[in-house]
Parts: sequence; C-alpha cells; structure tokens
Amino acid sequence: MRKVAIIGVGMTPFGEHWEEGLRDLAVQAGIQAISDAGISGDKIDAGYIGTMASGRLVGQEHIGGLLADYMGLNPIPITRVEGACASGSLALRQGFMAVASGMHELVVVGGVEKMTDLGVNTVSDILGGAGDQEWELFLGATFPGIYALMAKRHMYEYGTTEEMMAAVAVKNHKNGAKNKYAQFQNEITLDTVLKSKMIADPLKVFDCSPISDGAAGLILAPMDVAQSYTKKPIEIIATAQASDALALHSRETMSGLRATQVAGKKAFEMAKLSHKDIDFAEIHDCFTIAEIMAIEDLGFFKKGQGGKATLDGKTALGSEIPVNTSGGLKACGHPVGATGIKQAVEAVWQLRGQAEGRQVKDAHIGLTHNVGGSGATAVVHIYKNQ
Amino acid sequence: MRKVAIIGVGMTPFGEHWEEGLRDLAVQAGIQAISDAGISGDKIDAGYIGTMASGRLVGQEHIGGLLADYMGLNPIPITRVEGACASGSLALRQGFMAVASGMHELVVVGGVEKMTDLGVNTVSDILGGAGDQEWELFLGATFPGIYALMAKRHMYEYGTTEEMMAAVAVKNHKNGAKNKYAQFQNEITLDTVLKSKMIADPLKVFDCSPISDGAAGLILAPMDVAQSYTKKPIEIIATAQASDALALHSRETMSGLRATQVAGKKAFEMAKLSHKDIDFAEIHDCFTIAEIMAIEDLGFFKKGQGGKATLDGKTALGSEIPVNTSGGLKACGHPVGATGIKQAVEAVWQLRGQAEGRQVKDAHIGLTHNVGGSGATAVVHIYKNQ
Repeated sequence: MRKVAIIGVGMTPFGEHWEEGLRDLAVQAGIQAISDAGISGDKIDAGYIGTMASGRLVGQEHIGGLLADYMGLNPIPITRVEGACASGSLALRQGFMAVASGMHELVVVGGVEKMTDLGVNTVSDILGGAGDQEWELFLGATFPGIYALMAKRHMYEYGTTEEMMAAVAVKNHKNGAKNKYAQFQNEITLDTVLKSKMIADPLKVFDCSPISDGAAGLILAPMDVAQSYTKKPIEIIATAQASDALALHSRETMSGLRATQVAGKKAFEMAKLSHKDIDFAEIHDCFTIAEIMAIEDLGFFKKGQGGKATLDGKTALGSEIPVNTSGGLKACGHPVGATGIKQAVEAVWQLRGQAEGRQVKDAHIGLTHNVGGSGATAVVHIYKNQ
Repeated sequence: MRKVAIIGVGMTPFGEHWEEGLRDLAVQAGIQAISDAGISGDKIDAGYIGTMASGRLVGQEHIGGLLADYMGLNPIPITRVEGACASGSLALRQGFMAVASGMHELVVVGGVEKMTDLGVNTVSDILGGAGDQEWELFLGATFPGIYALMAKRHMYEYGTTEEMMAAVAVKNHKNGAKNKYAQFQNEITLDTVLKSKMIADPLKVFDCSPISDGAAGLILAPMDVAQSYTKKPIEIIATAQASDALALHSRETMSGLRATQVAGKKAFEMAKLSHKDIDFAEIHDCFTIAEIMAIEDLGFFKKGQGGKATLDGKTALGSEIPVNTSGGLKACGHPVGATGIKQAVEAVWQLRGQAEGRQVKDAHIGLTHNVGGSGATAVVHIYKNQ
C-alpha cells in the first residue's frame, strides 16, 4: 500500500445558505481545495463525495456525476459514498484506498449537505433514515430521542450530570467563536444550556447540533509526490471503520458505541500509536452526550469519566487533549455529509499551524472521529505532519 | 496492486417481491454468495453495497450499517456507494480497490433496490434524480423522454429504425426466457414491441426496462488465495469508470455516451485486450436504444451499425459477441442498484460454465457495462476465467 497525504483543503462557511444550492456549495469547497493544493483541475484523476440524503433533501441522487460535471472534471470518475452522518469520512476512506492501491494519483474528496430548504420536522424525519426506520423512526424514536436514551443510561451507570453535558456545548461554542467558518461564533454559559428548551429529556436544544448547509473538500496524493506540491503534506497514517447494530435495542450497551471502540482500536493499531500520542481530536458531538461517550470509547478517558473530565476543562484548548477545536458539530455546524471532511480540514489546519486563535501548540498528530446515525457506523482517521 | 478474483456469487430472482423488504432481499443475495464461496461469514472483513435511492424508495439511508447488522457481520465495515443505476458496479469497483490495495482480504459486494412499493409515477419521479433534476426532471424530462431524444437523434444520424430497436427487446426476452432469475421469462416478437403502447416517441413500453425488486451479491478475494476457496476463481482484469455532463443538453453528442467510450477504452487498456477478445457482454439496456449505442461506443460495432447488427442477429446467443445473455435490464429486470452486480453474477456463471440453456460456448473473457442515469456515469469491468 502506498502512503497517502492531504495536499489541499477547502470549505464553505457552515450555516444557512439561502442563496446557494447543494451543487454550488460542493463546487466552492472543491475549487478551494484544488486552489489550496496549487494544482490545476486537469491533474485530478478521480473523486469521492460524501452526502447522506441528497435524494430526499433536494431531489437529486447521482451527486458524483453532478460534481464531475459542475466542477468541470469530466470525464474522470467521481463516486458518491453514503454512511449517514459518517458519509464524509467514508468518502475520505475510499479516496485513501484509491490512492493507496495505485488505481489513482490525485484524488479530490468532498462532503456536502443542503438541509435548510425543508422544514425542521421533515428534516428530522429524513435524518431518521440514518437509524433503523422500521424499528425506530416509524415508532416515533427520532435522533434526539435515541441519544436521550443513551444519555439517561450513561447518567444511571456513571453519575454523569446535565451540567457535565452542558460543559461540552460551552467548550465547543468557545472554540467555534474562534473559527470564522463556524455556524455559531458566540460563546455561551452553562446556564444558557441548562435553561434552554427541553427537546428529549435530558437533552435540551443547546445539547443538540444544528441543521446546517455546507461543504468541505480535500486533495489526496501519494506521499512520495506530495512534497512536490506542498511543503506541508499531511500524511493519513490510519483509516479505520467499524459497524454495530442499526437499532439501539439490539446493542450490547447503550452507554457507549462499540463501533467507535473497534474503529479506534484498529486505527491506533494501523498508526502504531496510542491515545497518548494524539495532540488533538475532532469528535462526533451530534449531541453533547455523544462527545462524552466518544472520548471514553477512544480511550482518552476511562469509561464513565468523560463528563467530569469535560467539566474540569481537560478537553479544552490548552489542555493535554483539546477536543473539537473547530467548534465540533455543536458550534461549527453539522451539514451531515460534510462533517467528516470538515474534521479532516480542521486537522490539516492544526497540523500546518494555520488554526489561528484556536491553534493547538506543537500539534504533530491529530485524530478525527465520525459517527453514522446512532453508532451503526464509526470511522476514525489519524493524521501526522512531517 | 494485488490481483482480485470473484469466488462466490448469489442473487434473488428479479421481479415484484411483495412479501420481502429491501433488507430481506439484500441479505438473501449476500448469504447465497457467502454460501457459494463455501466460506463462513466471519471470514469476511469488509463490504460494499450499491443502492440508488433507498432513502426515497423505502425511507432508509445508512444501508451499509443496516446490512452489517442484518447479515450478522458486525463489526466489519460495510459502505454504501451510489451512482444512480450504476451503483452496483461502483460498489464492485470500491470492493476491487479495497482488496487490490491490501486494506481488506475477503470482501462482500452487493447491489439492491426495492422499487415496487410505490406507484409508477412516484418511482419515475425518484428515478429522475439520476439525471439533472434542476434542468431536466423539474421541467418534465423523465428518463423515457431523455432516452427518446437520444433515440430520435440516432435515427436521424444513422438511419436506425424502430424495428432495429425492437430487435434488442426480442433478443433479450429470448435470453431471459432461459434464465430462471429473470423478471420476464417469455419470448416476444417484433410485432409485440412495435404494437405496444407508446411511452415517449419512438420508445414503446417494450423498449423500456421494467421497475423491479431484487438483489445480487459477490465475494471478492485476492487472486493468490482465491484458488484455496474455489477451483474456478474468476479474475477481474479491468475496472474503469468515467463521467460526462449530467444533463443531456450539455453533452457533445446525443447519439452515444462519451462516458461509455472513455470507460471502455480505459478498461481495454487495463486488461491489455480489445473488443475482439471479448466472448460475451452484459450491456446496460435500460432502453433498447441504450444497448444499440453501447455496443457501438464500446467498439463492438462501428458507430451507427449497432441497430442493424442487432436486427441481423449479430449479438444473439451463438453469434460472435452474444449480448445480454441474462436477458439484460429489459427482460431480467432492473432493480437499479442491483443491476451492476447482477451483470457480474451472469459473467461469473458464463465463465464457470454454469449458464445452463444460455451458456456461451468456450467463454473465456466477459465484459459488463453499467450506466448511471442517462450517461453521466459509466462503468466497465472485464473478467477472465483460469
């Protein structure tokens, strides 16, 4: 297998884009990534795009063909990959294999979602397609409801409190306030979260990531030629994906995600590293409880200690393991197909030293963690600078 | 790159499955493929599934997670790939790269679609998402309409007749009558086609492939271990994918598919073969004109000669290049995401000598050709027996 590096990144601001469609957002991010890599489009010989539900959200499937067309990249192959909210990371993983295998040289990888054109109830229904719709959504279990069940169980088993969960949102808003691409660039307090509207007990509206539009893109190249394009290629030293039961009721546990545990273990094995070597992590915080479970499942904290650690500032900027410097899904926004790629863009910015006011000092190795649905898919990537 | 072989195949009958859902069909095909390979499920370490529009057709995204769950394959990664009607072949292509790169060893690859639960107008609308919905479908251009435009242009440029197109349907029904997995196992005459109901002039209902339910599956392995599983591994000696403008009005030509031409050329280069070396081909005949254009675009016949060649029996069983021995999309059926994998299943059966009454004599090398939408994506694979 050839080594693979990221040589270019780009993203649109995440938020509500009323004047732009899915194709406009994806093209913007892709062109930015190409421009950042300092290459011309005709150097690219394949592409992958992650999007969860373009069919239901905007009536358009065949997003690979659409983007080959609108990015002016015909006749190269571009392929859509889907794994619910992990679609972006799955696209990155396929791009990695396309380069690693020797099938392709320069590959553009993107993620996109256009979610705000429909009403919130319709979008909530569509997002329910990420879980087991026959056994969950059709019977009324929306995603906030499913994560609320996990939160309740985590509170019961480990004494996790609503304040600890709120601390995740406070930290991520603090980071998002330093990120000009974030949907919410305002700081909030524990009180803001705790007094906000209840959505699904114990999760309040500030425990939930928003509905967003946005896109992000990357350019991949074989490591051995990456330095001819950029002085700071970022190597992808691990890619791992795992699955679990689609419906919550079939899982072995409700207070953690087995797919995250397995993918994390595989990624550390592939990188020949442990959680101690990671300088920062972008974590899938679709709900505040999700970040707490993930930092435990990945081994950064012992099971049950993630909430207290967050409240104690152990995942803040300046701590040993800053989590979600981008603002995470909570504050940076969560256009579902784009999230996995945005995490990689943030990792690259950190590892190049371009993260401005939220820069992690001496960042050398970063990790991203992206979850599909309520945990039936999890993907972990690890990145290293030179 | 490691060489890759198919060591197991399976499929459900194509047709109307009123008592089975998407998950049932996909699991049936997958289990058959595993059983055909003579392995146990725990040997498999990754999977890919092609489906075009499960979100809109059955309300379920995240089909990778769903199938890892329902096939009992957790926690291995299973990833959904989508490229409209070429979704199956794109899944095969990703599976190929996963094995070729060394990332995975035994990979299950499938395709599935459950289309008959909705009314024909709704399904037609959903299929429109394979074209450029903002410029085509929203303005009334359904898929029969788009292919009718291509047919009219082909007739104008090359003198192709409605009788020649009808000959495609007659041949494919003749082949389908010998295939117990086909949706239509009855022979028809030129008159049946020519006198059938007009859908979009000049295409009549018997020029169109049907709406179908079905699934198909394959097991891939590195070539160097394939023979430890089966006496007859079928090597995939080429995989190529190309793209073109999504909307017909942006194309250079309307009487052929550039994506097919480019993918075909690349595939022949990768296999170091020409069209003369191919013993049989499964071709994407979503409409009869599509088969005529494809056998020209792939080089089996000169541009403009495909219709006459078909009418003259030059693509029939027993001819030099039998086309669509399975019955093609027209007679075997077209559950869109499953079609590309079904084509590979037919290729394997032919190359193993298991194609019963439709066996091609001395079959050594076969080709499959799968199109997404009206030609924004085309995928060509070439297979060889030992």
